[in-house]
Amino acid sequence: MSDKNDKIYTACLVIIGNEILSGRTQDKNLAYLAEFLNGLGVRLREARVIPDVEDTIIHTINEMRLEHDYVFTTGGIGPTHDDITAGCIAKAFGRPLILHPEAHARLKEYYGPEGLTSARARMAHTPEGAELIDNPISRAPGFRVENVYVLAGVPQIMQAMLQSLRHKITGGAPVKSMAVVAKIPESIIAGPLGELQDRFPDSDIGSYPFFRNGEAGTSLVVRCTDETMLNDIVAELSGIVRAQGVEPRIEDPNNPAPATD
Amino acid sequence: MSDKNDKIYTACLVIIGNEILSGRTQDKNLAYLAEFLNGLGVRLREARVIPDVEDTIIHTINEMRLEHDYVFTTGGIGPTHDDITAGCIAKAFGRPLILHPEAHARLKEYYGPEGLTSARARMAHTPEGAELIDNPISRAPGFRVENVYVLAGVPQIMQAMLQSLRHKITGGAPVKSMAVVAKIPESIIAGPLGELQDRFPDSDIGSYPFFRNGEAGTSLVVRCTDETMLNDIVAELSGIVRAQGVEPRIEDPNNPAPATD
Repeated sequence: MSDKNDKIYTACLVIIGNEILSGRTQDKNLAYLAEFLNGLGVRLREARVIPDVEDTIIHTINEMRLEHDYVFTTGGIGPTHDDITAGCIAKAFGRPLILHPEAHARLKEYYGPEGLTSARARMAHTPEGAELIDNPISRAPGFRVENVYVLAGVPQIMQAMLQSLRHKITGGAPVKSMAVVAKIPESIIAGPLGELQDRFPDSDIGSYPFFRNGEAGTSLVVRCTDETMLNDIVAELSGIVRAQGVEPRIEDPNNPAPATD
Repeated sequence: MSDKNDKIYTACLVIIGNEILSGRTQDKNLAYLAEFLNGLGVRLREARVIPDVEDTIIHTINEMRLEHDYVFTTGGIGPTHDDITAGCIAKAFGRPLILHPEAHARLKEYYGPEGLTSARARMAHTPEGAELIDNPISRAPGFRVENVYVLAGVPQIMQAMLQSLRHKITGGAPVKSMAVVAKIPESIIAGPLGELQDRFPDSDIGSYPFFRNGEAGTSLVVRCTDETMLNDIVAELSGIVRAQGVEPRIEDPNNPAPATD
């Protein structure tokens, strides 16, 4: 158990898609994956958005799968010519791309024997030895090869696929977070904030400015695995804000009603 | 001129920020930058979301600035302890981090001589030799070192900074795009779509499935620099869709009223 709690599990998301890089489509999968992994004690450490270019996909996958415990990809697993992810993952692992019998059976059941055109059968191809990831929405599955999880790009399908993986992903101690939000510019509390961070090196204290109705505000977000430490830091942050004559608002994602500490 | 038109200019966006990787904040800067650059004939080829970790920032900047004509960063240039971007860029270029006289003067004017605390003066530090990027909103400037453009993370400020750069960025022939949208699943037109892409290798034809009210639809997005070729491909795509008994809708971002070709 101590190994499970001490090890920090990290993940990378590789977003494959020209449509994100052209600005045409706004990615929604990063934020969803991040919160999903947080709950399982896995930290999303990096995300890369790359084009539908074979060499780039292969190179990125091979770099990331050595650096992280988990690599997730989104996009490029449909039936058209620009869906090249499965072939690239096969090349990255040096495995042949095969017609996966179970994936083929699922698509045949879904489309019927006549409806399973060669384009649709493309979606039943995986690298040899891949484990399927269920798609309860449009059936064409994702797949896993070692620590690389290949998901759809369409958010509803990506989310359903992730949910089916919930009990298959091992993580460490989950990172808990709380936010102290105040209508003050961050620059007037920067000094005590930095000192607080120095005193709690095992936590991560982030300061995020925002503007609302022309007024400057700051969200102070604390992240750590130790709940007592989290509460101590939130109490100190509240004190730093109150010293400026402002009452902070505490946001506790685990307890949506405002906390009163 | 032919050099300007032939060269493909590429860019990378480096999003620096734990708040994006935690899923707490949804990035809005990628899509804005992509469209801004499209208009200037620069292609956003890659984006990386990385944490506020010095080594990671330095390594990423040094890798990306050699690979792309332009590198943009967002985030980490505020007054607090977690704003480490300027120092990291200085280290990436092997230059000292200095108090930039012009940036200092701007902040002194904005905050008044007494209001310019040491925390705020942090925002006047840049790598030696950096050129400032104007911030008409909260004054604290971004900066450029060689081909690396360091911008704020707050979208309003990031956008204002980009606009001030509009005439300073050289690009090639802009990529034009149009979309043919139809209420059909992409799998039934995958064959002719792939053949069309093969016949027009200088274009990029993307097929993006969507689901709306339980119905499957497909956006076929064409991108190329040649307007005649663009129109030819759109006409062929429309024919492919009509062959399925469905009337497509043409989306022309340069001409918001639906085209009737």
